[in-house]
Amino acid sequence: MNTSSRKPLRLALLGCGSVGSQVVRLLREQADDLTARTGAEIELVGVAVRRPDLQRDAEVPRELLTTDAVGLVSRGDLDLVVEVIGGIEPARSLILTALENGASVVTANKALLAEDGSTLFAAAEKANRDLYYEAAVAGAIPIIRPLRESLAGDRVRRVLGIVNGTTNFILDKMDTLGSGFAEVLEEAQALGYAEADPTADVEGYDAAAKAAILASLAFHTRVTAADVYREGISEVSASDVASARDMDSVVKLLAICELRDGPNGPAVSARVHPAMIPRSHPLASVRGAYNAVFVESEAAGQLMFYGPGAGGSPTASAVLGDLVTVARNRLNDVRGPGESAYAQCEVLPMGDTLTRYHVALDVDDRTGVLAAVAQAFAEHGVSIQTVRQEGHGDDAQLVVVSHRATDAALSATVEDLRARDFVHDVSSVMRVEGDS
Amino acid sequence: MNTSSRKPLRLALLGCGSVGSQVVRLLREQADDLTARTGAEIELVGVAVRRPDLQRDAEVPRELLTTDAVGLVSRGDLDLVVEVIGGIEPARSLILTALENGASVVTANKALLAEDGSTLFAAAEKANRDLYYEAAVAGAIPIIRPLRESLAGDRVRRVLGIVNGTTNFILDKMDTLGSGFAEVLEEAQALGYAEADPTADVEGYDAAAKAAILASLAFHTRVTAADVYREGISEVSASDVASARDMDSVVKLLAICELRDGPNGPAVSARVHPAMIPRSHPLASVRGAYNAVFVESEAAGQLMFYGPGAGGSPTASAVLGDLVTVARNRLNDVRGPGESAYAQCEVLPMGDTLTRYHVALDVDDRTGVLAAVAQAFAEHGVSIQTVRQEGHGDDAQLVVVSHRATDAALSATVEDLRARDFVHDVSSVMRVEGDS
Repeated sequence: MNTSSRKPLRLALLGCGSVGSQVVRLLREQADDLTARTGAEIELVGVAVRRPDLQRDAEVPRELLTTDAVGLVSRGDLDLVVEVIGGIEPARSLILTALENGASVVTANKALLAEDGSTLFAAAEKANRDLYYEAAVAGAIPIIRPLRESLAGDRVRRVLGIVNGTTNFILDKMDTLGSGFAEVLEEAQALGYAEADPTADVEGYDAAAKAAILASLAFHTRVTAADVYREGISEVSASDVASARDMDSVVKLLAICELRDGPNGPAVSARVHPAMIPRSHPLASVRGAYNAVFVESEAAGQLMFYGPGAGGSPTASAVLGDLVTVARNRLNDVRGPGESAYAQCEVLPMGDTLTRYHVALDVDDRTGVLAAVAQAFAEHGVSIQTVRQEGHGDDAQLVVVSHRATDAALSATVEDLRARDFVHDVSSVMRVEGDS
Repeated sequence: MNTSSRKPLRLALLGCGSVGSQVVRLLREQADDLTARTGAEIELVGVAVRRPDLQRDAEVPRELLTTDAVGLVSRGDLDLVVEVIGGIEPARSLILTALENGASVVTANKALLAEDGSTLFAAAEKANRDLYYEAAVAGAIPIIRPLRESLAGDRVRRVLGIVNGTTNFILDKMDTLGSGFAEVLEEAQALGYAEADPTADVEGYDAAAKAAILASLAFHTRVTAADVYREGISEVSASDVASARDMDSVVKLLAICELRDGPNGPAVSARVHPAMIPRSHPLASVRGAYNAVFVESEAAGQLMFYGPGAGGSPTASAVLGDLVTVARNRLNDVRGPGESAYAQCEVLPMGDTLTRYHVALDVDDRTGVLAAVAQAFAEHGVSIQTVRQEGHGDDAQLVVVSHRATDAALSATVEDLRARDFVHDVSSVMRVEGDS
């Protein structure tokens, strides 16, 4: 088939777990295609692993395996390095060494990019090499490239993402079956959709890292994981999900990145929390462990990118797509678009973020309670969109949905209501998203 | 804000209708951003129009307008040309002249690419310039770039697209309201979703052009509009839509591009026709005039790209995204990935395409009819998945859904059934898609 007269590009792979072994498989199975699309052969010259004796999915040639990752990235004859180890160290040092030694890098490392992307981008810039990371957000779904290139002539206003498959699987099951969080988590763990220690997924840390990366890209501003407000789904109850259903809505864990008017000009809000969205919203139909990223931009309008958010083979597909581009750039001795942080907007604290609340209150069943609740909202400057009264006697409930207000005002309103004697319980508090 | 020390890139715009005027607007409003992302200013030096005295959406500087498009693209000092005239000529000659004179080209011209893309790609290759066309398929939705770059390390198996907003609007209304085609078409025309002469949309010509472009890209094979089998939606009846509803499905006009085993190796099937898809399929929830492209690839799995498929501003967003990339390439004196036709698979005729049929028959209400119908399918080698009997007496109906078979065998089966005396009428025939 296609062969190239150009000398092969030399590639090292760091990590050979579920993603790395699929990268090796695709490199072998699609070698002809890759050569045709790149313009030169891509030759795998080394694979750094911690345990060379481990049985692996793909037949990784034993002679390529090494435990000396530092030696591998320092050898100086590499054109390309793929990093799929994950975590902060040694991944960061290895990427920096690879760049210093003249290799372009493709990484799937969301945690590292969200914590210290600017160091990596600066090193890539200095070395005049590429640093690509499509696989770091939403697995196989092309979202980095569309944000960085396709929408380069547009202005992104908002990104709403379902970027964690574990939590979407759990919330989807809670919605479908009416079950509680703990019960569904167990099922997700049994099926392999959740890890034994589910904290990173369930408490929103994974999604927050992705939110930082998406916000940085969308708004040309450095946003780190520490800048992202984060709430997980472990407090989401069957009653919250039922409340959502009554509103013809579903509960999703959303990564939300918005451009807003701040006190000193355009400002960025980046946050991860469960929210109700209407069932008619395109994100509401994202089921199971799938991911999707919904983008609102000034000229293009509403776009959505949907697909598998994790898994060895999908993630490897994203890595290989980057690898072809980066390899072409190496052959042409150019770089793709680098980090773009020229806007450097302020990042708003959560309290200043504008949002809407859905609040369900168990209340005394007597005249005047509705007025008193409305008064509490008004005192905090929060305007009410709808109030629904349900039940009688001990089951009397008020369901309030607010208009948009600052999160600080909304949160203070709820605290205030909790202290009122006619409020027996605040049975559900949830933010509402998905309209403009 | 950001300024660049590099000399400006000189851009000519061909056409200044709904898309062109939005391109001018975005160039002006986002000038600083574009400079920051490109690395040099983009300077609009001329706009070719037919009627310079026409009132335009954006304030296009009068002194840039010219009726001499040939003179504009021949002047030899252009770096970039955007073509948004549409149609075959003079667009083709102008693009070829622009490339010969050293400009890279961004076009939104699906008809031209689908009819004679290979001439354009060859010219771009020869001139060592870019030819980008994200806006040609599905408006603002980034689909060309994901197929060409993000999935470059993967193998696409199938593309299912809702790529025509007019027909999706009509079918969606028929589903929601239960109305007939003619009635909804009138409403669509009144609302501006369909043109006075709706043939190009309604009969599937527009979608067929896009299918040719998608199939070419996805399978590295030259597919022209003439290779694409085409059926429009003017024959879709309220009863077809009701039949779909009974199957928990919806009718969509799909552009379908598949890689299949052909008689001489891998072969491509490219076709446009109405089909039933299950309501649970992600494409089923694409409402109104929105577009979406569903991609199944070997490693990445199922991806979907969703957004507005037309409109001046969304299409201009896609043009600008391409323009930034092409401009960066010009500054670096490189080209992006060119046409990739190395696979050059055979294109299967429709008769050889594997598909499934949903057939509703009005039949005699007597014992033995079901057996006779089943026998007719069996004689053509078509296996039946489900049969449902409904009604009695004059209302007796059989609804048959077949397993996968060649379109030729399925079509012959239906012809055969029409001729049987116990079949009063074949009330609905529709292909079924959306499962593997």
